[in-house]
Amino acid sequence: MSHLFYGFRERVKRMGSVGISLVEAFDEEALLALAEAESEGFALPFLMGDPDKIERAIESSGARLQNPVIVEAQGPLESARAGTRLVREGTCRILMKGKIGTGSLMKAVLDREEGLRTGRILSHVACLEVPGYDRFIFVTDGGVVLRPDLPKKAEIVSNAIDVARLMGVETPRVAVLAPSEVPNPDSEASVHAVELARMSREGRFPGAFVEGPMALDAAVSPEAASIKGMTGQVPGRADVLVAPDVVSGNSIAKSMQYFARAVMGGVIVGAAAPVVVISRADTAQVKLNSIAMARALI
Amino acid sequence: MSHLFYGFRERVKRMGSVGISLVEAFDEEALLALAEAESEGFALPFLMGDPDKIERAIESSGARLQNPVIVEAQGPLESARAGTRLVREGTCRILMKGKIGTGSLMKAVLDREEGLRTGRILSHVACLEVPGYDRFIFVTDGGVVLRPDLPKKAEIVSNAIDVARLMGVETPRVAVLAPSEVPNPDSEASVHAVELARMSREGRFPGAFVEGPMALDAAVSPEAASIKGMTGQVPGRADVLVAPDVVSGNSIAKSMQYFARAVMGGVIVGAAAPVVVISRADTAQVKLNSIAMARALI
Repeated sequence: MSHLFYGFRERVKRMGSVGISLVEAFDEEALLALAEAESEGFALPFLMGDPDKIERAIESSGARLQNPVIVEAQGPLESARAGTRLVREGTCRILMKGKIGTGSLMKAVLDREEGLRTGRILSHVACLEVPGYDRFIFVTDGGVVLRPDLPKKAEIVSNAIDVARLMGVETPRVAVLAPSEVPNPDSEASVHAVELARMSREGRFPGAFVEGPMALDAAVSPEAASIKGMTGQVPGRADVLVAPDVVSGNSIAKSMQYFARAVMGGVIVGAAAPVVVISRADTAQVKLNSIAMARALI
Repeated sequence: MSHLFYGFRERVKRMGSVGISLVEAFDEEALLALAEAESEGFALPFLMGDPDKIERAIESSGARLQNPVIVEAQGPLESARAGTRLVREGTCRILMKGKIGTGSLMKAVLDREEGLRTGRILSHVACLEVPGYDRFIFVTDGGVVLRPDLPKKAEIVSNAIDVARLMGVETPRVAVLAPSEVPNPDSEASVHAVELARMSREGRFPGAFVEGPMALDAAVSPEAASIKGMTGQVPGRADVLVAPDVVSGNSIAKSMQYFARAVMGGVIVGAAAPVVVISRADTAQVKLNSIAMARALI
């Protein structure tokens, strides 16, 4: 059913294992996903947190971890710090959220002294395999930046281009979404789209096409793009959809999951290492795909 | 394939015909949709515009209109005024966009002296039949209000509740979308959702349940709502999705159309009469469903 992600994970398996630092590791769902990634051969689990709680969670979850390294840390703050340190020092290459608030985890990631800052913006990139589509569709940012201004949106676009390329899209075609194709000075989404398209023409996003404004139909449907008389590299065949803000990005990706039965993976990029933040409502497959994405991005 | 809309249109047929005023009526697609609605027995076409251009468009489109009334009007301004006047005077009950910019049409609708203002906000309500769902899902506002403030959003919610009810949903369940279920003072979508839910508890939306903030998964997926531990009338079984702004509303509805192969209808409500604004890229079925929705709302 999920051919694209299946093929992708086969490729990730051949990349070999890297350490993944799971913060507050007594999260049964995260442990199960990590055990699966370990058994598929692309993850070595490092578990931060209270060892007793971790042992109990492993037992009650039934996660079959082969070689887990348990790193004692008491409380979310210490656990997040320990996980971040393992990544900074190179023992681990991926940071993953366990039973800790996303905010607390990101605070450790963004710490100016001991975090994983790179100077780039952090943003979420979702990758969706939609039944009937023969390519991945990426949606950004549905997870981190509430309402990006233009410079932030340009960085969000760059992050997404990187992810799409590392997942096999040679020349990512990026659609900046807006309510319509006609530039509208009253719509921030539209204004940003005009500017991002201009930046693209001026070489800001090498090896990619960034165009807009366009509505979602013109971005992904060749018929709609044709009826609307659109030209360019992106209309009708966008790989990446850039949402104007986090709630629209989140809603578009979830609409694809819940209405179109799309299979998803997602990762936060822009820090010194990929960060995997999975939601309680995500399926096991989403969690595994997300870890695989993080592995491919290293 | 489209059982819900089919059953709905059967019901609309029994309501009988009303006059529909098509502004700048030399739009082949609009003429075809109107001819179909006439033949299904719920529309009487009134065609505003240059009679020669209208005749030519009828001929080249092949639209088989039975009893069209042609009202001569030269230019979009005069045509929009004529169409609006027919509605204000009661000859027609629905206004429809032909080959005229949406902005020009809405200007005539919103004219303080001769328009169709009611004091309510005008907003777009999309109605979607998603394969695998046994009920309509409504999305608002993906068409008119760029970025509503809280009072406007409350009116948008009321408009959508009216539409859902007139289309057969007895007690509409309304989800106000946000990036997550945890209220976040930094997210306008989240703040509005908290307030709208409070208004609902205080009786502002009688005969409906308005709840939020919630992400789209919690709104429409019983599994996701359950995993997230949500209670209330709306989680997992929302009828109406309230988007934070026009671009997200537009994108969610289009995502359902283009990724989930949903069938859609849409109408602008809040004026003295429903306004049908169809997009070039819409299919004939979308256009017919939209006219049927307008008919049902009278």
